Amino acid sequence: MKIAIQGEPGSFSHQAAQQMLPRCTVVSCARSIEVFDRLERGQVWGAVIPIENTLAGSVAEHLDLMLSRQAFIQTEFRLRIVHNLIAHPKATLRRLRRVLSHPVALDQCRTFFRAHPSIEAVPFYDTAGSVKHVMAEDLLDTAAIAGSKASAVYGARILKTGIEDDKRNFTRFFLIRKNKRIAPAANKTSIAFTVKNQPGALFKALSVFALREISLSKIESRPVRGRPWEYVFYVDFLRGDDPVARKALSHLAEVADHTKVLGIYPAVQ
Amino acid sequence: MKIAIQGEPGSFSHQAAQQMLPRCTVVSCARSIEVFDRLERGQVWGAVIPIENTLAGSVAEHLDLMLSRQAFIQTEFRLRIVHNLIAHPKATLRRLRRVLSHPVALDQCRTFFRAHPSIEAVPFYDTAGSVKHVMAEDLLDTAAIAGSKASAVYGARILKTGIEDDKRNFTRFFLIRKNKRIAPAANKTSIAFTVKNQPGALFKALSVFALREISLSKIESRPVRGRPWEYVFYVDFLRGDDPVARKALSHLAEVADHTKVLGIYPAVQ
Repeated sequence: MKIAIQGEPGSFSHQAAQQMLPRCTVVSCARSIEVFDRLERGQVWGAVIPIENTLAGSVAEHLDLMLSRQAFIQTEFRLRIVHNLIAHPKATLRRLRRVLSHPVALDQCRTFFRAHPSIEAVPFYDTAGSVKHVMAEDLLDTAAIAGSKASAVYGARILKTGIEDDKRNFTRFFLIRKNKRIAPAANKTSIAFTVKNQPGALFKALSVFALREISLSKIESRPVRGRPWEYVFYVDFLRGDDPVARKALSHLAEVADHTKVLGIYPAVQ
Repeated sequence: MKIAIQGEPGSFSHQAAQQMLPRCTVVSCARSIEVFDRLERGQVWGAVIPIENTLAGSVAEHLDLMLSRQAFIQTEFRLRIVHNLIAHPKATLRRLRRVLSHPVALDQCRTFFRAHPSIEAVPFYDTAGSVKHVMAEDLLDTAAIAGSKASAVYGARILKTGIEDDKRNFTRFFLIRKNKRIAPAANKTSIAFTVKNQPGALFKALSVFALREISLSKIESRPVRGRPWEYVFYVDFLRGDDPVARKALSHLAEVADHTKVLGIYPAVQ
C-alpha cells in the first residue's frame, strides 16, 4: 500500500503514515504539489499530509491544495511532536559545535540551546533532511534535530530525546484518498467556502450551523490565490453525514458563493 | 529612528520598513521574539513585521506575539513581492548550476526553473541570507532569489527581475509601536478573542458586528499556545475608534472570554 508524503524519509509525515497504516510503503515527494499529482494519477493508494500544528499553525499550502485538487479526507490523526538531538554514531555531545534543523524545530528547542551556549543553531530546509546531511557528510561536530524515525532511517544515533520546550506540541495529519469515501463512524466534516464581500455575509454562513446547534471546531480564512484580499473560509464542524448536517450544507449553498466538502471522517479524541 | 525587523538586512521587511519610513535605521534581529523584546525595552522606536502573504497565508508566529506581548499596530502596508535572480557581479546566467532561496520563494518561481532545467533549486533559510551567502563565499555558479534591496545591500547584481510566477503576490506588514496610539484617519481595527467551547459561541461573537453592519475583512482561528485544540480568533473589521465600534467591542466583551485590541489604524486601499 503506497502512501505519498512530502519531505525526506524519516520526517514526521513518515512517522504519522506508519502509525496510521503500519504496513504502508512511503513514497517521498520533494514538493506537496507532487503528492497531489501522484494521488490524482492513481500512482499511490493515498497520501498523508500535515494540516496544522498546535504551535506553528496551519499548513497553508495543504489547505489550498485540498481546495483546488481532487482529494477527500479519510481520517485525521494527531502526532505528538518529539524533537531529538540526532548525530553520527561516533559523535559526542561534548564535541558538538553546530545543530542543523528546520527553523520551526530550532525555535521549539530554545531551552536546549540556552543550556548549551557553545552550540550554534543553524537553519536547514528540513528536519529529516538535516539528519540525512549529517550522515552523508560524516559530520562529527554537527548534529540535527528531528523525529526518532529520521535517526532509524539514516543509521544515526539519538544523543538526547525530548528536547522540545513545550510538550503540548501536536501536529494534525490527514490521510487523504482520491475519491470520496465516508467511514460509518464519521462524525466530523471539513468544508471550504467563499462568501460575497458584504457586511454580515460570514455571519449568515455561520448561522446555518448555529441555528442547528452544530459545533464548529475550527474556522480559518485564507486569501484566495490570485485574488488579493478575497478570502476562502475553512471550517470543521462536529457532525458526520447525517440529515441535519446535510440540511446545514444545503442551507450553506444558498448563502455562500462556492462550497466544497473536503472530507467526512471520524474525529480523533 | 530605529525600526526592528526580523531577518537579514535586505529582506522584504527591510524593504517595507524603508518604504513606510524612508529615513529609518533598520535593526536586524535573528528571531521575531527579539523584535518584540527590543520594542518592549524601548530600544527601538517601532518594528515592522509581515503578517500575511496573499499566497503563503498568515505569519502565525507574529499573530501569536501580537497577542502575548505589549505592542500596538500603527499602520498597515502592502508590499508587492518581486523576486529577483541575484548573483555575484562576475557571475553569468549561463554558468549557473544552483539557485538558493527560502523554500517559499523557490516555490513561487517554478516557471523560471522549468525554463532552466540545468539549474537546481536549493532551499536556504532566508531570501536575503541567500544573497549574503553567495557574496560571502564568492560563488560564481550559484545565485539567490530575493528582493532587490538584498542585491543593493550586499553589492550583488540582479541577473533577472520579476521571476515570480504570480504577479498578484503581496505581503501585508504592520508598523507596530510599544504604546497605544490611534491616528485620526483610523478606519480599521484588529482584535483577538477567545470564546467558550460551546455550539454557537463564535456565532454569538460575530453577531456583535453583524447586528451593527460592521464588515469583517479577515477572520482566522489559531490554536492557543499550550492548550491543544483550543482556539483564539483574529478578526479585522472596517471601523475606527467610533461610538458604534466601541459598542460592538463592549458587546463582544460580554459574549467572549478574553478580548484584546491589537490596533486601530488607517486601512490601506
